[in-house]
Amino acid sequence: MAPTKKAGVLGATGSVGQRFILLLSEHPDFELAVLGASSRSAGKKYSDAVDWKQTSILPEQSGAIVVSECKPENFADCDVVFSGLDADYAGDIEKAFVDAGLVIISNAKNYRREPSVPLVVPTANAEHLDIFTDRVLQSKSEGKKQGYQICISNCSTAGLVVPLKALQDKFGPIDTVTVTTMQAVSGAGFSPGVPSMDVLDNLVPFISGEEDKMEWETKKILGGISANGVDFIPVDDNELRVSAQCNRVAVIDGHTECVSFKFKNRPAPSVEQVKNCLSEFVSQPQRLGCYSAPKKAIYVLEQSDRPQPRLDRNRDNGYAVSVGRVREDPVLDFKFVALSHNTIIGAAGSGILIAETLLAKSLI
Amino acid sequence: MAPTKKAGVLGATGSVGQRFILLLSEHPDFELAVLGASSRSAGKKYSDAVDWKQTSILPEQSGAIVVSECKPENFADCDVVFSGLDADYAGDIEKAFVDAGLVIISNAKNYRREPSVPLVVPTANAEHLDIFTDRVLQSKSEGKKQGYQICISNCSTAGLVVPLKALQDKFGPIDTVTVTTMQAVSGAGFSPGVPSMDVLDNLVPFISGEEDKMEWETKKILGGISANGVDFIPVDDNELRVSAQCNRVAVIDGHTECVSFKFKNRPAPSVEQVKNCLSEFVSQPQRLGCYSAPKKAIYVLEQSDRPQPRLDRNRDNGYAVSVGRVREDPVLDFKFVALSHNTIIGAAGSGILIAETLLAKSLI
Amino acid sequence: MAPTKKAGVLGATGSVGQRFILLLSEHPDFELAVLGASSRSAGKKYSDAVDWKQTSILPEQSGAIVVSECKPENFADCDVVFSGLDADYAGDIEKAFVDAGLVIISNAKNYRREPSVPLVVPTANAEHLDIFTDRVLQSKSEGKKQGYQICISNCSTAGLVVPLKALQDKFGPIDTVTVTTMQAVSGAGFSPGVPSMDVLDNLVPFISGEEDKMEWETKKILGGISANGVDFIPVDDNELRVSAQCNRVAVIDGHTECVSFKFKNRPAPSVEQVKNCLSEFVSQPQRLGCYSAPKKAIYVLEQSDRPQPRLDRNRDNGYAVSVGRVREDPVLDFKFVALSHNTIIGAAGSGILIAETLLAKSLI
Amino acid sequence: MAPTKKAGVLGATGSVGQRFILLLSEHPDFELAVLGASSRSAGKKYSDAVDWKQTSILPEQSGAIVVSECKPENFADCDVVFSGLDADYAGDIEKAFVDAGLVIISNAKNYRREPSVPLVVPTANAEHLDIFTDRVLQSKSEGKKQGYQICISNCSTAGLVVPLKALQDKFGPIDTVTVTTMQAVSGAGFSPGVPSMDVLDNLVPFISGEEDKMEWETKKILGGISANGVDFIPVDDNELRVSAQCNRVAVIDGHTECVSFKFKNRPAPSVEQVKNCLSEFVSQPQRLGCYSAPKKAIYVLEQSDRPQPRLDRNRDNGYAVSVGRVREDPVLDFKFVALSHNTIIGAAGSGILIAETLLAKSLI
Repeated sequence: MAPTKKAGVLGATGSVGQRFILLLSEHPDFELAVLGASSRSAGKKYSDAVDWKQTSILPEQSGAIVVSECKPENFADCDVVFSGLDADYAGDIEKAFVDAGLVIISNAKNYRREPSVPLVVPTANAEHLDIFTDRVLQSKSEGKKQGYQICISNCSTAGLVVPLKALQDKFGPIDTVTVTTMQAVSGAGFSPGVPSMDVLDNLVPFISGEEDKMEWETKKILGGISANGVDFIPVDDNELRVSAQCNRVAVIDGHTECVSFKFKNRPAPSVEQVKNCLSEFVSQPQRLGCYSAPKKAIYVLEQSDRPQPRLDRNRDNGYAVSVGRVREDPVLDFKFVALSHNTIIGAAGSGILIAETLLAKSLI
Repeated sequence: MAPTKKAGVLGATGSVGQRFILLLSEHPDFELAVLGASSRSAGKKYSDAVDWKQTSILPEQSGAIVVSECKPENFADCDVVFSGLDADYAGDIEKAFVDAGLVIISNAKNYRREPSVPLVVPTANAEHLDIFTDRVLQSKSEGKKQGYQICISNCSTAGLVVPLKALQDKFGPIDTVTVTTMQAVSGAGFSPGVPSMDVLDNLVPFISGEEDKMEWETKKILGGISANGVDFIPVDDNELRVSAQCNRVAVIDGHTECVSFKFKNRPAPSVEQVKNCLSEFVSQPQRLGCYSAPKKAIYVLEQSDRPQPRLDRNRDNGYAVSVGRVREDPVLDFKFVALSHNTIIGAAGSGILIAETLLAKSLI
Repeated sequence: MAPTKKAGVLGATGSVGQRFILLLSEHPDFELAVLGASSRSAGKKYSDAVDWKQTSILPEQSGAIVVSECKPENFADCDVVFSGLDADYAGDIEKAFVDAGLVIISNAKNYRREPSVPLVVPTANAEHLDIFTDRVLQSKSEGKKQGYQICISNCSTAGLVVPLKALQDKFGPIDTVTVTTMQAVSGAGFSPGVPSMDVLDNLVPFISGEEDKMEWETKKILGGISANGVDFIPVDDNELRVSAQCNRVAVIDGHTECVSFKFKNRPAPSVEQVKNCLSEFVSQPQRLGCYSAPKKAIYVLEQSDRPQPRLDRNRDNGYAVSVGRVREDPVLDFKFVALSHNTIIGAAGSGILIAETLLAKSLI
Repeated sequence: MAPTKKAGVLGATGSVGQRFILLLSEHPDFELAVLGASSRSAGKKYSDAVDWKQTSILPEQSGAIVVSECKPENFADCDVVFSGLDADYAGDIEKAFVDAGLVIISNAKNYRREPSVPLVVPTANAEHLDIFTDRVLQSKSEGKKQGYQICISNCSTAGLVVPLKALQDKFGPIDTVTVTTMQAVSGAGFSPGVPSMDVLDNLVPFISGEEDKMEWETKKILGGISANGVDFIPVDDNELRVSAQCNRVAVIDGHTECVSFKFKNRPAPSVEQVKNCLSEFVSQPQRLGCYSAPKKAIYVLEQSDRPQPRLDRNRDNGYAVSVGRVREDPVLDFKFVALSHNTIIGAAGSGILIAETLLAKSLI
């Protein structure tokens, strides 16, 4: 069956843009229609404009597309536009697109803290997308296009909030989280990305802005919606304390996170209950039958030395989070190791699954 | 000035043994006198028996020593014996050596939890060595040799307890510690050691027994001595909760540890006070003027992305611990990143510095 | 369509065996019927016996198979048996299987130099398999089973001989080859395999026996068949001089080889002719329509910095060889860089494609 | 004894400049007097201007120097100036310094092919420095300063020409060389230097311009001087054919090179003669008693798996070349593996040793 929706990609030559393109080639729902990049690339065939650095070959059909400038008029036919723009450009361009009535799913950090913009990891809080339902219905009834924007979470946030959300849904609020990450280099792009001198026989115990993002975004994603139904309200700092320590290590793909946490309610569940809850968790995109939805949102691994990034990052094509070593914690209630594919569920893949969820909800 | 004391090494062909030998060659206090290894190696020149894998060349004089079997009578002339034996052999052999009146400083785990055996990181708890003072004096007065044993801590424990001890000395008890480690491969030896498939584009979130060691050893090292002065009493589990998560990463040397902790006393000191305390800490081996003692036991780094293992592990020849990113923690009081050289202050080097301290205290 | 042939795997728990199993699960021609391993594993479910270390999940159906001992009677129903046995065991076991009328395709080195045994890289010299045609026909006509054996080449040989064979077929004999390899660690297995100390901030310019294998196997694969049609005759040392230097580097999968070579005939072709010849080469498995045959046996890359193992090893599922940087050589005629997936076309995958070719030739 | 000569460094904040500074701190002959960098850094204390990335701590005294602009008048007192300038700037600045009567030792590539400029690896062709003897004497007698320039070879050239020169001196011309390099990342600097995506689970079989440099520079270094004594004449292309293939691999420091070569004269020496010649070679800086000269210019290693970069690069502080696996070659006469420290004998260290040689020859 041919795709029914047209998709565009902003920042198409960059590292995130390339992954959007790979994920959209041969997608059953979306046809890759427009590729936007800087004026330096505009007018060239994409295959001539890009320095393709993916492990899969550039799909021929995508390579043949002539690159456009990132202006709303070039994307007027698109039902959804994925943005892999750098933060330096995303602010103005994305706003212009929304103002023009387009639906933007952005990997940039610019609007994540905007109260009216959902910040979404689709296997965690896809219900946040419902905030647009009334407006879209209203606009449709008026024959108008309703522009809106959704932000993809930071890559390191994704692997944390999926298991936390599953647990919170079942056992009530989590009030304390400590997490130390060991993050892959691919998230930093490839040119230059992370210098090799930083990760050969070395690691860097710092990623600029990352800890603050993880701590803040977790509260928005686990949070609620304002009484009037138009804004997102992060969990209050007094209700949920999150401490993140972020490190860059010599791994290509896959963020590993050592997590410990405490429930608000006493008595806390048992280790077995925690494991069962994680393993049995079914996310909204799964229930909606989305094409890229993982078979399981969370895999609980029982081997003592798993998850490992090279062996486990590709479960369910990178849309699943793997959790291992679930055990009691001498300081908080429990600790575990979570692994998520930073460029799939942590970035471009999350954007695709958000779009599929919007489609399933008739929001595009 | 020629060395005045004779030293022996048990397990001389192994990875820890090789490092003892390097550190003892050209040592001003100790003359490398006896090398002990398995019966397969005994009788051979050391240079023929060993598969030397250090980045420094095997010292000629050490290479010429004929290897002995690990029997006390072969080490009778040694003032101190360093053991790099595998745990499989250390139990019986080390006991026999102590019974024969020899002083054993062991890197093996076998006797670390023995109440009467000090577990020492010399820049943290060298005062634990004083437990032997009376017995040594007594034996000397009787013209006898007093055998005793000291255990070197686990490599990952060392980097944690040095800063904690400095802080506890100044600000009173620490009652909660959460630590996630990213540990180098060199600690696992080289043949086979850590398989390359484990750490290329990968990491392993598990090191067998390591978390338990860190949690337990920290309490013994930060703990005290029994009323009768013969046993060590770890800090009670209710007084100090420690949670460790240990990972193996693609680094040759240097364990990086993301630490957060809480003081028992309120109000807690300020970040500046914590940094000053760490930076100004002077360990006992420094005060005693030991040859290998670092200029500073702890370096506090101010750059946002330090310490890093490749750049910082060799401060003061690997005997110093580097601490960076000291900051407030949303969950406990403070967090920081500590880096220690796992084969120096975390293993063989610690043994050498313990011996120097014993010498300065007239215990050998 | 259901598979029509039954396959067995010897050495099923090892690293090569695991790859055979992955490649055979969901194979259209072969049904994975018997798994053979040591007596320690025999009788257990495969999923309990194996320490599965592949990046794809162990297929459920394969995991459920009960492991057998490596005895011919357990494999009597198999149309083909793939051997991933260690060289220590392969000699006797494989001989017993052939004597029992079974068809063995072996990754072990034991019989590669046996004159009567074909040594095959299927995209290079699949025609060597025809040596069995008469015997199989004869046996069939007599209603007997004809046992025979085929050896898979060494992993580093594969990437070299495919382009050399293409060129020799078109431009006549190659009489001089110099090759320096940079080989991935996966070929050495995972436990222990290559120690991490060998390839972190390091490489090892030596792989035991490897250079000799490459130099010798190349001559057998590029060679012919004896007049009486029963033995393989390697190219004479005077007709073809091959010099190999083999190195182990920090790459998971994919052997990179810097090759220079000279044709016997003058004038030599041009660089363009060489590139076209490589690019246009169609191997026998392609012509026979084998399931795993690559779309192209050789890809000629034009970017100046390719092929690279991480980016190019998976072309056509690892069955294609990538060749780049084809240029004139100041010493011999030409030089280029060849890349091949060492566990696919260089090992287990080669075995599968050999079996598919045998099937297409009605030899099984 | 206090240093007698003043030294300056151009490009002091860059990666090569930092290494010059490390090597000059505590140097017995040279006092680090002037540090030159861009106008952005000029006027600042060096410790404030630099992003120090060496594994040794920035020497305090060097850190306190106020950075100057790269103008000859600021370096008027310097007896020698080391240039770590980028090629983009080196051309004009270095010319101005020479014109101003200064002695420049440059790591930049700009003037390497200038016939009148010596291209020197000090343990290979220090005698090329004698070309300045008459001019310096003449200038001294006239009370003038004689400006002149010397170029340090490319890092990959150094490890090749030292053993070749030793052999050529003893056995006559070498007429054919084939070399494949596996080069460390440190030579490319650290910001950005080589991207981590290029060398994690990967290598890049291409370094821009490198093969041409190796092939050409080898001929100049092994070549002679024109009849009138003012120009260097590289070995003719017909007399010496060199083919280089250059690769970037995941190693921090140390270039490994697989070399094969042929002598012009027949009969060729034996393997033993080749090994003895290499091992017994004494370079001019050794004979002159230069401070940094290695104890041996070439170490011949007998273990089958050596040299390895991590284990062997620091022999004699990185000023020695290690050669292993010397054996007959089926194509040319011999092959071996050479290892050299790319930032010591291959770059900054070479510059320092050139300066020491100039001093020993009374040329500064």
